[in-house]
Amino acid sequence: MQQLIRGEMLHFLSDPGDPAPGAVAAGYQHFNDGGMLIADGRILLCGPWNDVAKAAAAGTSCIDHSGCLILPGFVDTHIHYPQTDVIASPGHGLLDWLERYTFPAERQFIDQDWGIEVAEFFCDELLRNGTTTALVFGTVHPQSVEAFFSVAQRRRLRMVAGKTMMDRNCPDYLRDTAKSSYDDSKRLIDTWHGVGRLGYAITPRFAITSSDAQLEAAGALAREYPALPVHTHVAESPAEVAWVKDLFPWSRSYLDVYDRHGLLRPRSVLAHCLYLDDVDRRRMAASGAAAAFCPTSNLFLGSGLFDLRQALDAGVRVSIGTDVGAGTSFSMLRTLACAYQVAHLKDYVLSPLRSFYLGTLAGAAVLGIDDVIGNFLPGKEADFIVLDPCATPLLGRRMAVAQTLEERLFIWLTLGDDRAVKHTYVMGVAQSVRR
Amino acid sequence: MQQLIRGEMLHFLSDPGDPAPGAVAAGYQHFNDGGMLIADGRILLCGPWNDVAKAAAAGTSCIDHSGCLILPGFVDTHIHYPQTDVIASPGHGLLDWLERYTFPAERQFIDQDWGIEVAEFFCDELLRNGTTTALVFGTVHPQSVEAFFSVAQRRRLRMVAGKTMMDRNCPDYLRDTAKSSYDDSKRLIDTWHGVGRLGYAITPRFAITSSDAQLEAAGALAREYPALPVHTHVAESPAEVAWVKDLFPWSRSYLDVYDRHGLLRPRSVLAHCLYLDDVDRRRMAASGAAAAFCPTSNLFLGSGLFDLRQALDAGVRVSIGTDVGAGTSFSMLRTLACAYQVAHLKDYVLSPLRSFYLGTLAGAAVLGIDDVIGNFLPGKEADFIVLDPCATPLLGRRMAVAQTLEERLFIWLTLGDDRAVKHTYVMGVAQSVRR
Repeated sequence: MQQLIRGEMLHFLSDPGDPAPGAVAAGYQHFNDGGMLIADGRILLCGPWNDVAKAAAAGTSCIDHSGCLILPGFVDTHIHYPQTDVIASPGHGLLDWLERYTFPAERQFIDQDWGIEVAEFFCDELLRNGTTTALVFGTVHPQSVEAFFSVAQRRRLRMVAGKTMMDRNCPDYLRDTAKSSYDDSKRLIDTWHGVGRLGYAITPRFAITSSDAQLEAAGALAREYPALPVHTHVAESPAEVAWVKDLFPWSRSYLDVYDRHGLLRPRSVLAHCLYLDDVDRRRMAASGAAAAFCPTSNLFLGSGLFDLRQALDAGVRVSIGTDVGAGTSFSMLRTLACAYQVAHLKDYVLSPLRSFYLGTLAGAAVLGIDDVIGNFLPGKEADFIVLDPCATPLLGRRMAVAQTLEERLFIWLTLGDDRAVKHTYVMGVAQSVRR
Repeated sequence: MQQLIRGEMLHFLSDPGDPAPGAVAAGYQHFNDGGMLIADGRILLCGPWNDVAKAAAAGTSCIDHSGCLILPGFVDTHIHYPQTDVIASPGHGLLDWLERYTFPAERQFIDQDWGIEVAEFFCDELLRNGTTTALVFGTVHPQSVEAFFSVAQRRRLRMVAGKTMMDRNCPDYLRDTAKSSYDDSKRLIDTWHGVGRLGYAITPRFAITSSDAQLEAAGALAREYPALPVHTHVAESPAEVAWVKDLFPWSRSYLDVYDRHGLLRPRSVLAHCLYLDDVDRRRMAASGAAAAFCPTSNLFLGSGLFDLRQALDAGVRVSIGTDVGAGTSFSMLRTLACAYQVAHLKDYVLSPLRSFYLGTLAGAAVLGIDDVIGNFLPGKEADFIVLDPCATPLLGRRMAVAQTLEERLFIWLTLGDDRAVKHTYVMGVAQSVRR
């Protein structure tokens, strides 16, 4: 059974970089009057409406979103679902915030039913905001991941998640061991990875809360499952960096701790990367590991300013994370607006095209799933969103005088929020979420 | 004819500072079950519901906002109404942004009808966001101020505005002269200042676009009208500061330019103040001039990070501005969220109580109108807002587990936007605005 979608469409084939105003950028396709032909949740064809309509089987129905912009669903490459209820809790820096709010909140996830309840709300929020894929931290409890995957599976969402590994420097009630974290992770991998649209990420929280033995266990998993993402944090705050230096006196740098344990490779996603040096950046680039830039979180916790241009210039792969609950919004639009600001403070003007690339295809690529999501090439899963240019009076007024695609993209990311995401489609099906 | 309002109420009497968590703060009143008695648009009494209800005349009707929080309307102390349609235009720093977007947009305000159209939309946006008073830049055209005041007057809004004075380093089509700017400002003052709820501010754009002769004319106006606010910009970007140094080789600092022309005094509001030194800060404090902190604008243009604690510690008066159109939101909630982040990057944790003080009473005080607005003391004009704890699913979920007033205030500013402002009352009357 085929389905046609009509509307203005934009998707990326590669990084468009930062084209000069007026210059023609490469790396993307844009159809003012576009069409998408879908069958069994997958894209058969995307292109100019006339071409796509001709390719459709006779009698194929069409959903017309003309007047709106259709984009691939956003990919959020760093978020903690158990911190949904911690959002907007003020901490005096990362470590204080973890102690006071986050660890107590994570404790509740020993109860799988609680995990399911939170995961349902969390997935609703993602979809309201147009995020169709995320790289998600669970808690230390394997059942938190069971809960999350069961919810994502029922909704047919493409999600990547993992059980947090943490065996020290945290409350007893959140502590596993090197062995139990290995065993639990392995069992979860064997149960869930590759089942439907689900993927597993090996997930040590960060070097502070993992002993060398546990990091070695994570490295062993990484060797056993070479295709799996690795998901962790690095160099988020100065106090954290200093503590890591104490804990791992043998290491050249914080990043080096992960490197020695074999955790840097393609599909490794390291949140934050604020305090890396040139050697670290070169190592990131050479290894294929990616930096998840989480601007709202970095500003909220006062962690610092990520130097986006420096990372890109060094060849480091970069994607975007909301990092809820330290991040202040589930919205990729608001997160990209914040990314623009943080880059601007570092004297780098991030282009709107590159912003949307970072929020879509780049995220899929760092997770190694750009063969199935991230743009509208034939065969991709039909996860896409419909952006409304008139979601608020201000957005509508401003959009009415915008002239170029780049201007409109910039207006959406600057003024938009969940309201600008009119529809979110998963595998070709419009999702209904609370408004 | 009296009117009762019921609901949780919070207002400030003075700066509550940053109380330690759990400590009792001074400077505010909070009534869980509060009442406000209004007559002829003014507050007769605000206090615990039982006391206020008893004081009301027999048969006085009551509007019940129980479940919501009632606060004084926000006071935005730096905003440009002619830049409403420029919001979300990406510039490479302040000066580039002015040239490319702002000056061309301001040109249209030669047409008073256009000014009226924009002023109507602008006032709607302010009210949607709970801002009941603002300090507003017009353009160089006196008719832009006529337009704005006529709209504000019809709506009975307490607004302060002025004609921009700019006689050099700007396009010909936006240029006045020292004499014409003096004459036009004087005529506008005599026509509008003190008429109903309107106030006039002497408004040289900034030192770059005013000759010494024009600044002297502004100073002359300031001497003739000692009670009037002065509204300008200072030290927003490094390139601007360098240019001012070239233009005024005799000046010790950028701030000093205004000082020599007699423009620093109580009710002088200087937007930005990013690049001041200790001497400047001492002079600001001694003069009574205020810094309007415009965090979303400073981040959007990459201008830099205001050091809020440094300013407060030096005794500088501080208030908040959205600075639309370089600012990215009309929402004081979102602006306060951004203020928190900028402060945090400077290692200062701004308390929620102080945040809301800055967004309300502090703004009224720097404008010298805290005798008529800014809190709920008897005799004040009844401009107030009703904050909804359940405006979005995320806000509602988060609010449900919040325990203290401070936590709830922080959640509103972190997660809230125009949707959180359920009602905006002006002179005791609920305003209807597009949603």
